[in-house]
This record gives sequence, structure tokens and C-alpha cells, in this order.
Amino acid sequence: MNTETQINLLDYIKDVKDFPKEGIIFKDITPILLNPKAYQYCLNQLLEKSSSPKIKFDKIVGVESRGFWFGPAMAQQLNVGFVPVRKKGKLPGETISQNYNLEYGQDALEIHKNAICKGDRILIHDDLLASGGTVSAVEKLVAQLGGEVVGYNFVISLDSIFKDRSLNAPISSVLTF
Amino acid sequence: MNTETQINLLDYIKDVKDFPKEGIIFKDITPILLNPKAYQYCLNQLLEKSSSPKIKFDKIVGVESRGFWFGPAMAQQLNVGFVPVRKKGKLPGETISQNYNLEYGQDALEIHKNAICKGDRILIHDDLLASGGTVSAVEKLVAQLGGEVVGYNFVISLDSIFKDRSLNAPISSVLTF
Repeated sequence: MNTETQINLLDYIKDVKDFPKEGIIFKDITPILLNPKAYQYCLNQLLEKSSSPKIKFDKIVGVESRGFWFGPAMAQQLNVGFVPVRKKGKLPGETISQNYNLEYGQDALEIHKNAICKGDRILIHDDLLASGGTVSAVEKLVAQLGGEVVGYNFVISLDSIFKDRSLNAPISSVLTF
Repeated sequence: MNTETQINLLDYIKDVKDFPKEGIIFKDITPILLNPKAYQYCLNQLLEKSSSPKIKFDKIVGVESRGFWFGPAMAQQLNVGFVPVRKKGKLPGETISQNYNLEYGQDALEIHKNAICKGDRILIHDDLLASGGTVSAVEKLVAQLGGEVVGYNFVISLDSIFKDRSLNAPISSVLTF
């Protein structure tokens, strides 16, 4: 697709200083959503980088809320299921919960018990990899339900902040800072 | 698509009693996400019902978080922009805010100021139409920025609860209860 070569995703990511708190430079990806060509390009890149002969998966697990911007569209294109991981108290069915630290605060994540079957191969998707605390918690949720994480997939990874926390599957991202 | 006729979306919506509080029967649509055929069918239905010669729009505005499960995928299929409306304090850029009552509590919604241009024709999307309080607040946000709401689009509308609150554009939903 020739039109794609005209897209520079960096033009659609906005640095926001001191958000959500002082000292953090937040990577705002909402300009990507606003531009259909940028969205399509980013989606194609996510799909391309998430899949390989080695990485086959049954479901994508996406993290609330920004992991919902691309996760369901990826799942639809790949014809696999999508499983939302949400903040405490947001999922209506029977859940399991996992506390975690993130780079600015603490929180708990939940997943529906019946969303993962034993032996399911899982791709974890989120907008951003920073410290890795969030996806490490998601990996624990998936493992508790008998699933196997075969890959991690992000729009952006911040390599300067990320410290390997025993993420044992390949990590892919569209952009690295 | 003949396979689509085999899908009964009702099989993929789970009633959850007393969630998020006593007396509410919550419509859980996560089983739709879990099944690629059900997701594709629901997405097709949303697209079909949102569009008509009378309803042309430039952007889809989707409401956090469940409005993100189909909203960005709809925008991608239609080649239009997607604008997230989020809870207070979640969007990093310059925002405007709108308080609203919902059937179980109160909250505030925000939108990026630069996400809507004067004259933009907007489809508002969410998972569920209940009292109409949420989308009424979103309509106010869009109007404040000079946009025009040309349609409201939902997976589910609860006609027994919904009371017309001056929603002046056509309302479409895949399922009505």
C-alpha cells in the first residue's frame, strides 16, 4: 500500500508534560485515532509485528482503557477473540484480581474467569510499555486461568524505563523511544 | 454472508443481576468480544444501522470504556476519525468537561478541545442506551466545540428506561430490550 509510506506516526503522537503528574512526559496517541490513515497504518503495523510463524495465538487480551483502542480491531482483523482486562469492580461477571504498581501509583486489574481456557495462547496488547508493571500483572491473571502468554504487543515501548520483569515472551511495538 | 445468519447475538449477551448495584440487571456484552463471528456480526450491524443516505458523518465519538470496544473498529471500517470521550482527568490534552447523572450515580466526561472542528458531523457511539444521560452529556460536549450530532448508535438500547432527553438525531441500536 503506497499511501502508507506517507504516514509518519511520530506526527500523530503528542508529548504532554507533567501528565498525569509532575515529571511524567505522557505520550498521547489520540491524534492517531483522529486520522483514519494514521489509525490504519498503526493497526497494520501492530498486526504485522504481533504475528509470526512462531507467534500464533487464540485470543488478544487488552488492557483498559487505551488497550481497547486497537485491541478489538486487531482481534477482528485476525479473527480471534478479544478479552478485556479492566480496573477493579468494572467487569460484571466472576473475576480474578491482581494488584500491581505502575509508574505513577497503584491499582488492581481484573479479568473474567471464563474468558481464558486452559491452554489458550494469548497475545497481551496495550498502548504503552513503560515499567512493565501492568502487563506483568496481566500475565499473572492469564497464567492463573491456565493460559499461556506467547507475545506482548504495544503501540509504544519506552526502552529507557522498561526493566525486564520476567516477561518471557517476545515483545513487539510499533514505536520505541 | 451466509454464516452471519447463524449468529443470534442474544446468545452472547449475559444478564448480570445487581451489577454494579442492587436492582440493576446489567447487560454484559463481553461474550460478543470473545467470539470473532459474533463480534464481526455485531460490528456489521452497527455499521449498517449507523449509516444511511441521510446520516453522513466525519467522526465517531465513543464513550469510555465500553464505547471503545466497537467505536474505533467502526471508524476504521468507515474511514473516519475516532474521538474518545473519557472520565474526568484521563485525557492528557486541553479538554472541556460536562457533568451528568447516570442511572447509578454521577460523573463528569471530558473531550479534547481540538478533537472536534466547527461543522464536524458526529456519530455518537456507546455500548448501551439506558436513561440517555451519558450521550446527552456527550452531545453537549460536541455542540460546545461546534460539532453537529447527526446520529446516536448503540449495541443495545433499553427502551423501558430511556426517556427522550432532547436527543435530536436518529437513534439506532443492534438490539432493543
